Amino acid sequence: MSHVNEPLARHVLGDWGTSRLRLWLIERGEVAATREGPGIGALTNPPGDTLAALVAPWRSASETLHVVLSGMAGSRTGLLETDYVPTAADFDRWSRAARLTRVHDMPVAVAAGLRDESRQHAPDVMRGEDTQIFGAMQLEPALRAGSHLFVLPGTHSKWVGIENGAIARINTALTGELFALLHDHSILLKAGSAENADSAEHDAGFDAGLKRSQHLPERLLAALFEVRTAQLLRGRSRAWASGFLSGLLIGDEIAGMSALHASIRDVVIVADAQLAGLYERALAARGIRSRRFDGGACALAGLRQLYESVRGEFS
Amino acid sequence: MSHVNEPLARHVLGDWGTSRLRLWLIERGEVAATREGPGIGALTNPPGDTLAALVAPWRSASETLHVVLSGMAGSRTGLLETDYVPTAADFDRWSRAARLTRVHDMPVAVAAGLRDESRQHAPDVMRGEDTQIFGAMQLEPALRAGSHLFVLPGTHSKWVGIENGAIARINTALTGELFALLHDHSILLKAGSAENADSAEHDAGFDAGLKRSQHLPERLLAALFEVRTAQLLRGRSRAWASGFLSGLLIGDEIAGMSALHASIRDVVIVADAQLAGLYERALAARGIRSRRFDGGACALAGLRQLYESVRGEFS
Repeated sequence: MSHVNEPLARHVLGDWGTSRLRLWLIERGEVAATREGPGIGALTNPPGDTLAALVAPWRSASETLHVVLSGMAGSRTGLLETDYVPTAADFDRWSRAARLTRVHDMPVAVAAGLRDESRQHAPDVMRGEDTQIFGAMQLEPALRAGSHLFVLPGTHSKWVGIENGAIARINTALTGELFALLHDHSILLKAGSAENADSAEHDAGFDAGLKRSQHLPERLLAALFEVRTAQLLRGRSRAWASGFLSGLLIGDEIAGMSALHASIRDVVIVADAQLAGLYERALAARGIRSRRFDGGACALAGLRQLYESVRGEFS
Repeated sequence: MSHVNEPLARHVLGDWGTSRLRLWLIERGEVAATREGPGIGALTNPPGDTLAALVAPWRSASETLHVVLSGMAGSRTGLLETDYVPTAADFDRWSRAARLTRVHDMPVAVAAGLRDESRQHAPDVMRGEDTQIFGAMQLEPALRAGSHLFVLPGTHSKWVGIENGAIARINTALTGELFALLHDHSILLKAGSAENADSAEHDAGFDAGLKRSQHLPERLLAALFEVRTAQLLRGRSRAWASGFLSGLLIGDEIAGMSALHASIRDVVIVADAQLAGLYERALAARGIRSRRFDGGACALAGLRQLYESVRGEFS
């Protein structure tokens, strides 16, 4: 329970993803300091030791520092494995599945993930995007009413259907991971040639890739080779080809999700500015309106709300 | 010109791909010996040095050994860059574009590639599959009449339309390369867990992947994550998941190519036995008949024919 007139305790909020940990120190309700650390997928030490070392400068002998973590902290390789709460789940249902543990004498609450079993073929899951979505609803309460479709692009792009404040459907597209694999390890981009930051070339390639994705009866696998032939036989630059690959993948992702969610008109993008910009352009190219929220701000808002919900458990 | 009554010269035929070089020593029209070497993509020494070292045991002081090579030997990073002959091209047109060079005092003929400019968006190319296709027509002359659709699965799966003996259309799908990247480097298959050769599990996964690919409105990017959730939440084995990934990709490749070639009824598969078997099953699952030719036998037949065509140039 939140007690509005009581000053909030000094505490730490953390968004622990696969590739990055972001920590916020909260004092009297304000962000007093931030730190970054390695993601769960990049750890060399046990996660508890990593966490303790990062927050050590913020600890004092006279008080107990509370910590709330979301994301991959709750995965099997994280700090403490938490449940995947079945959808549809609103904030209360999700937050109640958070679990408390102790790390180097600090009480740490670890958020649950979410699991969508509604799909015909296979379940879908997420950890961390839940916090950002509930955070967006904190930042804009109007999102708690009615139906909304969110996209949280990244290594694994999450498309999330919201119904009256509850997370109802999850669909993951492997877009970001596939882009990285194809960009860095395939024959598609000429090895060795530097991808000088020619953003005009990249933009032109991105738009060409988006356009190509609009009519793709032969499907993605048969179009990817064009990234190579455009360089080999059409003299396209590596920056153009990289943009083309990006546009082709993001465009195809949106085309597929549009087929699943037939009535898409508006999409809420939660991402950093650069990725949000690409998705805005890609959605606009298909006539879909979008609005954006900053991913970090949403994570922080969701973690604040989660702390309010679980702080009674710490004492 | 071939002179039927004249004993064929002692010569070497070679299929030089990205990942492997296969050499055949021909004596009096028969294969007298074979050797293997590194592909063009795996060379550490200049290609000419590699070739000379491999054929050295077959050379004698008293005669000039002729060599005919196809495939990536004619690429920019190969032995001698040869043209991409525009489609539609029959054997005569393609073989006339082979070029002669000398390597460590041996005369070497290097085959051309083929380039299809008929596509709306981008050209498509091949080097080496041409030789196998013309070889299949040597092995079965009936393939020289009428329309046929070939598939040559591999790192880059080539779908090739034949019209009256000429290679008319080329479409490349990145299936094999994408499978390897996702299998070895993505989060889809649990790292570290050994993929014990449980072929029953792999087969069951392959069939499930084929089935999944039959109705895929959300497209490939949104289905790949199921490889992971099947293991994470459904207890599927790594062998099953690997088979599922394979079936999903091959099934999606065939679905896309079926959309391009609307009237597919029969497909000619040119591949090794293991890959041919997977494509046979995948085609059958979509009601498409297929027949297979061994890739090595086709390469050898095509190279024999190419030697007959260019041998006059050697003298």
